[in-house]
Amino acid sequence: MAKRATPYVPGLQLNEPNIIKLNTNENPYPPSPNVMDAIKKEGSNHLQLYPSSTTVDLRKTIGEIYGLTADEVFIGNGSDEVLAFSFMAFFEPEKKIRYPNITYSFYPVYATLFNIPVETVEVNADFTLPTDAFFNSEGGVIFPNPNAPTSLYLPLDEIEGIIQNNPDNVVIIDEAYVDFAEGSAARLIHKYDNVLVIQTTSKSRSLAGLRVGYALGNASLIQALIKIKDSFNSYTIDRLALVGAQAAFEDRAYFDRVTNQIVNTREDVIQRLQNFGFSVLPSQTNFVFATHETYAATELYAALKEARILVRHFDQPRIENYLRITIGTEEEMNVFFEKLKDIVKV
Amino acid sequence: MAKRATPYVPGLQLNEPNIIKLNTNENPYPPSPNVMDAIKKEGSNHLQLYPSSTTVDLRKTIGEIYGLTADEVFIGNGSDEVLAFSFMAFFEPEKKIRYPNITYSFYPVYATLFNIPVETVEVNADFTLPTDAFFNSEGGVIFPNPNAPTSLYLPLDEIEGIIQNNPDNVVIIDEAYVDFAEGSAARLIHKYDNVLVIQTTSKSRSLAGLRVGYALGNASLIQALIKIKDSFNSYTIDRLALVGAQAAFEDRAYFDRVTNQIVNTREDVIQRLQNFGFSVLPSQTNFVFATHETYAATELYAALKEARILVRHFDQPRIENYLRITIGTEEEMNVFFEKLKDIVKV
Repeated sequence: MAKRATPYVPGLQLNEPNIIKLNTNENPYPPSPNVMDAIKKEGSNHLQLYPSSTTVDLRKTIGEIYGLTADEVFIGNGSDEVLAFSFMAFFEPEKKIRYPNITYSFYPVYATLFNIPVETVEVNADFTLPTDAFFNSEGGVIFPNPNAPTSLYLPLDEIEGIIQNNPDNVVIIDEAYVDFAEGSAARLIHKYDNVLVIQTTSKSRSLAGLRVGYALGNASLIQALIKIKDSFNSYTIDRLALVGAQAAFEDRAYFDRVTNQIVNTREDVIQRLQNFGFSVLPSQTNFVFATHETYAATELYAALKEARILVRHFDQPRIENYLRITIGTEEEMNVFFEKLKDIVKV
Repeated sequence: MAKRATPYVPGLQLNEPNIIKLNTNENPYPPSPNVMDAIKKEGSNHLQLYPSSTTVDLRKTIGEIYGLTADEVFIGNGSDEVLAFSFMAFFEPEKKIRYPNITYSFYPVYATLFNIPVETVEVNADFTLPTDAFFNSEGGVIFPNPNAPTSLYLPLDEIEGIIQNNPDNVVIIDEAYVDFAEGSAARLIHKYDNVLVIQTTSKSRSLAGLRVGYALGNASLIQALIKIKDSFNSYTIDRLALVGAQAAFEDRAYFDRVTNQIVNTREDVIQRLQNFGFSVLPSQTNFVFATHETYAATELYAALKEARILVRHFDQPRIENYLRITIGTEEEMNVFFEKLKDIVKV
């Protein structure tokens, strides 16, 4: 298997103090202060004891947010682990799965690692997903909603069509950014038994450093994930991550404040980018995907890096002239536009 | 793959305050106080940012203990994840691997999950490993040293024979308990390129709650593990676990004190169990494996549980009349023997 693996390459992690990091879609705000309070309390007691292998308390807390029971929630070590377990649990060698050709670049890595054949679906000229092209897949469907790196949101009625037209396969909706969007497909879970929704605490909950992702779906899908997890690693989430994530979910007011702030900053950033001559896709995420009519993306990327601002560029057909820019704090975005003024002459 | 998986069943986690837990080989002492100091410092800064995906600082720190470089160390989310990645990286379908028939019960689970065929090696009448039977394996060798649940240590010259007689395959020495034993096979790494040593912070470093395991081996084996990891999950270790484990490794004096204490308590426990009529295998771990000449293990297990003391029993041929008893604090073991006095009439 080692020979087949082609690793995913994450965005640069240059955590130098005077760098503005707008390249890995992290939240610019710290988590709720309750998170570290819970961690300090837990850490002073039990670090020498194994954590819960069932993670049932956190599953219950997350479930309540979506009107689901603990049996309809699975917790993993970041949503990437949840995705990897899902490929193992729901997709099979010999049966082709479908995902968009412009999407989260970890999907092809999993497909290679687990020997799952793929038919990629070409996105439309405006980067939206051609819903019908996902109908009647051989082995299942997976896509992010909103999609990454395009930032585009697919309305739930279109998602429902994809689910209805894949009755014998699992349709995975990867909702890493959904808290910055219209709404989650979690509301479809009690209607369809073949939809799995995957979310993360790394974006809207400000816990990228803690590694907690989760899946929502009907109990038999969740049971299949638990079976894989228990055949792989009994204890995937440590004690501190469990209580930290729990505290983050319980502080709804903090969550609402931070996500609203980021959405407001995003709308302001889109406006200002347009004033600089950028075309910006209509984002429902905590980042924007933008291209400039005269300046090449590689050139802008390099000039911003020189100015100690990191954004993300994907050297890939159709999007090679786009930049993915994470929404930072208002202050960070002001610095970003200050620097941009020296680079882009309007 | 879901259908093939037969999950591992971990020991009960009844973390009630008035239960004495001698069933999952946790350390009875908390980690070095430096661990929580480091965690508090890290947590107040960066929880919203992804952790290091290369974990290079911790790899360097661990490497230094064994005279290895960071390139010769791999970090995983507990040693179970390191084991799972190792099965994926080094063992292949169609080539039979070998492990003892009495051993860590997660190995058959991984073999089933990853479709690796197995020839189990019958342990000797005294539960020692028949070294020659591991020579010239088709696809590789894995065994714990000390072995679990027998607690027996295989001397390094015998391990060297197994390594020498598997020149084209990887020999994995799973050293979860080695800090309570004579010595690690890590000293063989610069001599042989086919030996991988796997260790954990869950036992001797008192960090079962934090989930940090690691592998030691030559750089090309470590590179193969990194390739699997980066094809599975970019960030497997959270920020708090990284700095917590680092602090634990740096506090050598605390580590020495705790491991010595446990070894001393173990020798005392063995003596006292023998006085109660138990036969105890010569342990080099933080647990003992014991059988009683007149009382059945299931009977003792149930009576101890009734007295709110949890030990572990494996319902498995050849060891069904043994109990695995974790070494607790001196106080806990005094309570254990108090209760035992009511159960076993000497």
